[in-house]
Amino acid sequence: MKWVTKITKVEPNHLVTKGYRQEDLIGNKPFAHIVYLILKGELPSEEHGNMMDAILSACIDHGVTPPSSIAARTVASGGVPLPTAVAAGILSIGDAHGGAIEKGAKFFQEGIKIMQEKGLDITEIAEILVHESSEKKKRILGFGHRVHTSDPRTKKLFYLSEKMNINGNHIALSKAIEKSLEKSIGKKLPINVDGAIAAIISDMGFDWKLGKAFFLIGRAAGLTAHVYEEQTEFKPMRKLFDMDCEYGGPEEMDLR
Amino acid sequence: MKWVTKITKVEPNHLVTKGYRQEDLIGNKPFAHIVYLILKGELPSEEHGNMMDAILSACIDHGVTPPSSIAARTVASGGVPLPTAVAAGILSIGDAHGGAIEKGAKFFQEGIKIMQEKGLDITEIAEILVHESSEKKKRILGFGHRVHTSDPRTKKLFYLSEKMNINGNHIALSKAIEKSLEKSIGKKLPINVDGAIAAIISDMGFDWKLGKAFFLIGRAAGLTAHVYEEQTEFKPMRKLFDMDCEYGGPEEMDLR
Amino acid sequence: MKWVTKITKVEPNHLVTKGYRQEDLIGNKPFAHIVYLILKGELPSEEHGNMMDAILSACIDHGVTPPSSIAARTVASGGVPLPTAVAAGILSIGDAHGGAIEKGAKFFQEGIKIMQEKGLDITEIAEILVHESSEKKKRILGFGHRVHTSDPRTKKLFYLSEKMNINGNHIALSKAIEKSLEKSIGKKLPINVDGAIAAIISDMGFDWKLGKAFFLIGRAAGLTAHVYEEQTEFKPMRKLFDMDCEYGGPEEMDLR
Amino acid sequence: MKWVTKITKVEPNHLVTKGYRQEDLIGNKPFAHIVYLILKGELPSEEHGNMMDAILSACIDHGVTPPSSIAARTVASGGVPLPTAVAAGILSIGDAHGGAIEKGAKFFQEGIKIMQEKGLDITEIAEILVHESSEKKKRILGFGHRVHTSDPRTKKLFYLSEKMNINGNHIALSKAIEKSLEKSIGKKLPINVDGAIAAIISDMGFDWKLGKAFFLIGRAAGLTAHVYEEQTEFKPMRKLFDMDCEYGGPEEMDLR
Repeated sequence: MKWVTKITKVEPNHLVTKGYRQEDLIGNKPFAHIVYLILKGELPSEEHGNMMDAILSACIDHGVTPPSSIAARTVASGGVPLPTAVAAGILSIGDAHGGAIEKGAKFFQEGIKIMQEKGLDITEIAEILVHESSEKKKRILGFGHRVHTSDPRTKKLFYLSEKMNINGNHIALSKAIEKSLEKSIGKKLPINVDGAIAAIISDMGFDWKLGKAFFLIGRAAGLTAHVYEEQTEFKPMRKLFDMDCEYGGPEEMDLR
Repeated sequence: MKWVTKITKVEPNHLVTKGYRQEDLIGNKPFAHIVYLILKGELPSEEHGNMMDAILSACIDHGVTPPSSIAARTVASGGVPLPTAVAAGILSIGDAHGGAIEKGAKFFQEGIKIMQEKGLDITEIAEILVHESSEKKKRILGFGHRVHTSDPRTKKLFYLSEKMNINGNHIALSKAIEKSLEKSIGKKLPINVDGAIAAIISDMGFDWKLGKAFFLIGRAAGLTAHVYEEQTEFKPMRKLFDMDCEYGGPEEMDLR
Repeated sequence: MKWVTKITKVEPNHLVTKGYRQEDLIGNKPFAHIVYLILKGELPSEEHGNMMDAILSACIDHGVTPPSSIAARTVASGGVPLPTAVAAGILSIGDAHGGAIEKGAKFFQEGIKIMQEKGLDITEIAEILVHESSEKKKRILGFGHRVHTSDPRTKKLFYLSEKMNINGNHIALSKAIEKSLEKSIGKKLPINVDGAIAAIISDMGFDWKLGKAFFLIGRAAGLTAHVYEEQTEFKPMRKLFDMDCEYGGPEEMDLR
Repeated sequence: MKWVTKITKVEPNHLVTKGYRQEDLIGNKPFAHIVYLILKGELPSEEHGNMMDAILSACIDHGVTPPSSIAARTVASGGVPLPTAVAAGILSIGDAHGGAIEKGAKFFQEGIKIMQEKGLDITEIAEILVHESSEKKKRILGFGHRVHTSDPRTKKLFYLSEKMNINGNHIALSKAIEKSLEKSIGKKLPINVDGAIAAIISDMGFDWKLGKAFFLIGRAAGLTAHVYEEQTEFKPMRKLFDMDCEYGGPEEMDLR
């Protein structure tokens, strides 16, 4: 039952991560570049490293509104250690929260594959994909947002990807889908921050299975801030929310 | 039940974190500086920002040996989503794993306070603290390591803190305690990476209650790499370990 | 590194838990009795088994109001598997939520020990403990409830403990403290369900370190019901709560 | 945003779960019957209640071998509260660990539906399903076990379901699939405890989406016992396992 890890070699006074001694990495490469290294197996170019840095920063926090902040603060209010509460927030990162990065990246990566196999161009594959989704009544993830119509994070990320020369097929496809969706639905459903990250990491060569990873790593910092604020500024078991929920189960009855 | 958060303002197409618009931060400030901002409430100086970056990098991974990696990989092997498994790893960050940063920072911060109140110098307070701990048979956390005698991360972090002009009382105290411990025990018990981070963040003005936060944020990336490796290179429910455990409960008997 | 577990022997086609073959236990002993067995190392008397059953039942659910239900439902709304969401709820069981069972049991068990060592009676030790807590301005946990003044679960549990002949020193102490508190504060602060369980499990001989265990095991079922309801009756990412929270951090400014 | 829960009504001094006052349920109905009530919305018949009790008991523990025990004990060894460690164990309940109950129940329930729609009998649908799975090279979950060839829990559960008159189409289908699999593969792949529970809860009318729930609720007790043993009998950060893992990443190199 010998098995192999490709991540870190641990020997007394000697730590090697993906080929590099940790003391060489620490302080010489920005944290975001080392994150890229540990997930992809090689150090990024300056451009890719900067892009990764921007992606982690774009994920850092969305205030008290998303399930992850609510879960983290609620669990903190039960009187538990900081990591327990932060972990509770991370547990909520699922298909509906942060999940559009994974699903979007899968969708874009499979779309480009089909395009290449069938010798189509970007506009053609976008129209096929939008048509298919509309037929199957399936939403394409990564478009539209419950709060923002023009998300400042999305705009900045696309501005940076352009500047960093990260502008391959997946980003092009995401923009073509946006256009095609508008034609198909009759109203604009803009690429959201999840969709933008999905397209950019795909053009950076990341496996869609890592889609939730970038969001998780960036958001871990924001959740930590929420838990710290909850633990130091508020009382345990305080009322965080108003709930307009009523009991609608079986009528009260006697136990026979 | 109106309450106030000081972290992020969320309005349509407008996200402000600790006073800064997110689109201004993304790509203009390194992720580690934004982590500093969200935890401390102000952007760091270049030196403090670089130090934070190095600290996060020093926490990124310690291979498959610590409880957090084992827990994350084990939970992944049950067949669950990536964030669920990463969160399981984070749950193990406790008093015995990563906890020396919190406890060490508290110890250093309280020590320096006593020193100032009583008008002592660093050597005097170090000797008093070591003497007290020895009397109470309490271990001072942040010294000694189960694997390393001269941890490359510790050396690099102290080298950088010197270079970044972060060399206040808490770091001095940590070094004085190391010397005093050697005299008291008769053998060297070197400051470990947790102790070094505890001293450095104390000199950077961080609350000891955030001690586990830096470790958690850095390690979230390493745990993600472990879970991704487990999910893509290994089969679910594989045997990760050999266990030499036997049953020693009551003898088998009949139920009367 | 051979080590011993006293819980379950696992051999092919042969499972022995605390001395009993699992096939003998299943269907012959109620689940609550087997819970008692696995936590205490011996099967309960009929009375103790019934009491354990009642305690688990008393912990099963408190609607959508406590942190555990809110956390479980919120995490479920992120689009994750059922066990991930239930676990998030369990994470909130801490010093402030369910924790009064552990802290209360510790308080009662230590109180009775002091009583016996000093040759006091129940009323005397109760008055000493209430006086000390009032001096130190420390709340005695297990008394008072944010919703109930006369909790139906508390009354039923004490009625059953009487009937099951579980009425030792710890229950007596809890009642004496209630009286003494009323005298001291000038208003009734009745034993709550946590306090009642703390006293009863202490009289059943359980270690206070297991205080949160009974609550956790019973509540796991209620949390499962909440997550299942959330997953089958509601949409992901729905708005569960109204939050009256505003941003009060630094004023918006330009990044220099 | 008014919404409705059908689980528990919470009013001062008044708790009603699925129509019954909690003080009526506590001590009058076994815990397992109340679990049935809270998940299904009605109290069980004596037979169904007893079956539920046996199912929870059959899930209570499988020693230190499964991912859930390893994760719970490993997280406990990091020095965290009991519920945090138990929750980590629950997180590992996934498609590969306990998941065969959910997937098996879905498979049986869909199989019986097809049988009824097409007017087939049990043997015919079993053969079709086994044939299809073999064609698609998909394993049918709930058959075979990594440790047991004749699991004592499986035998006892089927013995009890027979005795409790729970012997409908789903159990019949599970047995027909076992036979058909033997013919198809040429060796016996017996129904395992997950498969047995999947078939029995399907005959009891439970939604397959609750498949992991019964396992989770029963196992929460066993995991609690493991965490308690770890916390009271062992040192934090002890070596629980031997790992034969080596680094196989990129060769060590200098950072350019």
